[in-house]
Amino acid sequence: MNTIFLAPVQEGINKVEALMRSQANDHHPDLRAAMELLISAGGKRIRPTITLLSGKMLGAPDDRLIILAAAIELLHTATLVHDDLIDGSLLRRGIPTLNSKWTPAATVLTGDFIFARAAKLAADTGSVALMKVFATTLSTIVNGEITQLFTSHCQVNRDDYNRRIYAKTASLFETSATTAAILSQAPQKTIDDLCHYGYCIGMAFQIIDDILDFTGEQATVGKPVGSDLQQGIVTLPTIIYIEMNPKDGDGTRLRSGQCLNEDHATRMAEAIRDSPAIKKAHAEAQQYIQQGIDYLSNCSDTPERRSLEEIAEFIVQRSL
Amino acid sequence: MNTIFLAPVQEGINKVEALMRSQANDHHPDLRAAMELLISAGGKRIRPTITLLSGKMLGAPDDRLIILAAAIELLHTATLVHDDLIDGSLLRRGIPTLNSKWTPAATVLTGDFIFARAAKLAADTGSVALMKVFATTLSTIVNGEITQLFTSHCQVNRDDYNRRIYAKTASLFETSATTAAILSQAPQKTIDDLCHYGYCIGMAFQIIDDILDFTGEQATVGKPVGSDLQQGIVTLPTIIYIEMNPKDGDGTRLRSGQCLNEDHATRMAEAIRDSPAIKKAHAEAQQYIQQGIDYLSNCSDTPERRSLEEIAEFIVQRSL
Repeated sequence: MNTIFLAPVQEGINKVEALMRSQANDHHPDLRAAMELLISAGGKRIRPTITLLSGKMLGAPDDRLIILAAAIELLHTATLVHDDLIDGSLLRRGIPTLNSKWTPAATVLTGDFIFARAAKLAADTGSVALMKVFATTLSTIVNGEITQLFTSHCQVNRDDYNRRIYAKTASLFETSATTAAILSQAPQKTIDDLCHYGYCIGMAFQIIDDILDFTGEQATVGKPVGSDLQQGIVTLPTIIYIEMNPKDGDGTRLRSGQCLNEDHATRMAEAIRDSPAIKKAHAEAQQYIQQGIDYLSNCSDTPERRSLEEIAEFIVQRSL
Repeated sequence: MNTIFLAPVQEGINKVEALMRSQANDHHPDLRAAMELLISAGGKRIRPTITLLSGKMLGAPDDRLIILAAAIELLHTATLVHDDLIDGSLLRRGIPTLNSKWTPAATVLTGDFIFARAAKLAADTGSVALMKVFATTLSTIVNGEITQLFTSHCQVNRDDYNRRIYAKTASLFETSATTAAILSQAPQKTIDDLCHYGYCIGMAFQIIDDILDFTGEQATVGKPVGSDLQQGIVTLPTIIYIEMNPKDGDGTRLRSGQCLNEDHATRMAEAIRDSPAIKKAHAEAQQYIQQGIDYLSNCSDTPERRSLEEIAEFIVQRSL
């Protein structure tokens, strides 16, 4: 990620990746290979970057901060491994997924192993309060996935959408910042501020992802354009489009809980992409970003705080 | 389980089950239903019984002990959910498994959710040392399953067998006793004694399970007799049989790393069942049990200690 906000923590991110890799040491060679594959597949490391920046800003002990950031990114990695298995995804970020090469059994167990190591690293930070937040977040993420699996299809409902993107994305962003503040033994007010910062930019992050599902190039997003709607997953651009076009036939179908067939979903996705709903959804993300930045206003003006602000701005600029 | 050793902790076990059930409260109704199904399917609750007895014996605080015991049994439950999915098992203890009714996706996620709640409960005990043991045990169990998946078939090797049954079973027995001692703030020597007690009876438990695979009634064991050998899993009775019959053709095949076809596996399983290898394997389990009981000899002579001794004896009597 060629971005300026990484500068204060680039060395830390290298240490985090080394620590993640080392979790499979002394374990089965195939497990080591899987871990290597998953870590070299990369990703933006945005969650551990938030953790490192928040912790450095608030004076967390360096070594435990690295451990925490690795725990956070491993938790994220484990959920992706099980997600890709469940969705049958063959590629992630253009790179073959574990389940595209391995059996379901091996993929389930590799995910479990990574959960286990994430929990161990979280325990290694030595903070019980942090452990509780960490474990609660895992419950939230998984409950969100179960809910999506069973019920959230073809529902046009903002509250439901907000709950879903909180569980899927914002909860772990929130935890990335909150646990760093806990590790820093920051005052409760500061912990709360960092919690809100993480929440806000996490909500924005997922809204932008959902916009990119309509506007992004397939090569960038890694899945067909409009694929959420094809799967009956109603996101913010669709909700806003229906609010703005109350007579749209497909919108009426969705509001009554009916799913769209492929042709209708394609037509609607194109209509949404070319409509002002995209810009409005983007403005909502921008609002979250501004709120997130505002929550940092009581923190002293360090390079780390400026990087946290830049991350927020980077998130919302991805879709431009 | 109509056994005398439960008496001192029966009320505690009821509380443990209630706490396990409550973990899905406020979550998706299907998840609550799955949790209910898994908990009412029961099992002997031998691990939380060990935790409660050890903690009561050593003076652990009641409320946190219940939380710990529920964490231990949920960890066990989560591993069973993923195991049954991986093995494609349709029944466990004669009751349909979750994966026999649900999709793989729902089963994976339910297992993940239970892991998450187990981790949260472990954190709720407020002991970092305990959390570390707990998380390490999860890594050990999963690494053992991965190793079994990839490499441990048709190998005749005692060290390998010991490592496998430690990972599969003894590690969590060990943890059930060790974490209770940690929670009791017992001296390190006592923690070590309880650790060895758990290890020994866990090793014996799995040896007996492996004997029952040859000698048990299908209705009791819940799978065809000799099924381990059919799957290329070499357990203690087979190892001893080969030691005692070095010229056995199938034994020679296995020693050279060749798997047996169905007919040969059936023949060999019957030969093992009718051989003194069973009695010898049983004697090895009995030795572990005696060692386990010996490790309790420095604990004061309470009803709880006597129950822990009875559990040990109960384990080894299952195959008689």
